[in-house]
Amino acid sequence: MSEDNTVFIGNKPVTAYVMACVTQFNRNADSIVLKARGRAISRAVDVAEVLRHRFMKDLVELTDIKIATEQIETREGNLTNVSAIEITITKT
Amino acid sequence: MSEDNTVFIGNKPVTAYVMACVTQFNRNADSIVLKARGRAISRAVDVAEVLRHRFMKDLVELTDIKIATEQIETREGNLTNVSAIEITITKT
Repeated sequence: MSEDNTVFIGNKPVTAYVMACVTQFNRNADSIVLKARGRAISRAVDVAEVLRHRFMKDLVELTDIKIATEQIETREGNLTNVSAIEITITKT
Repeated sequence: MSEDNTVFIGNKPVTAYVMACVTQFNRNADSIVLKARGRAISRAVDVAEVLRHRFMKDLVELTDIKIATEQIETREGNLTNVSAIEITITKT
């Protein structure tokens, strides 16, 4: 899958990411991967749920959910572990 | 699956839930379902990752991840939607 179809979930409101996904699907993406780390994980789940139950109801489905641990560097230069999620949403 | 094997993730530290899971596996549970809602979702992912990569490395594996939307009643008596996750961890 092309990295172009990835939506990184950060601190913006849920609807901002929902709109980014709708735009990508309208540009003929067949599937989108939502990626989030740490506390943004729950927002990624919100985006997936709002997309499939409201904005694109019956048009998309969840096809994969993966969780993982990633190493990131802190401001002090130390390595620390952070949980991550990848949710794949595909046109039906 | 018996409800006894469910661990509800709330606001305690990650290690509290990791220890609850280790205890249940030591009492011969074959699998455990971590359940969380809202902002606790990212903590549920942390618990699963710490269990399978550290405390019970090579002893357990992820067998299912589901996300859903649940309706809850607010203090004012209104219904509101909240995202939820269920992560199933099974002995290898």
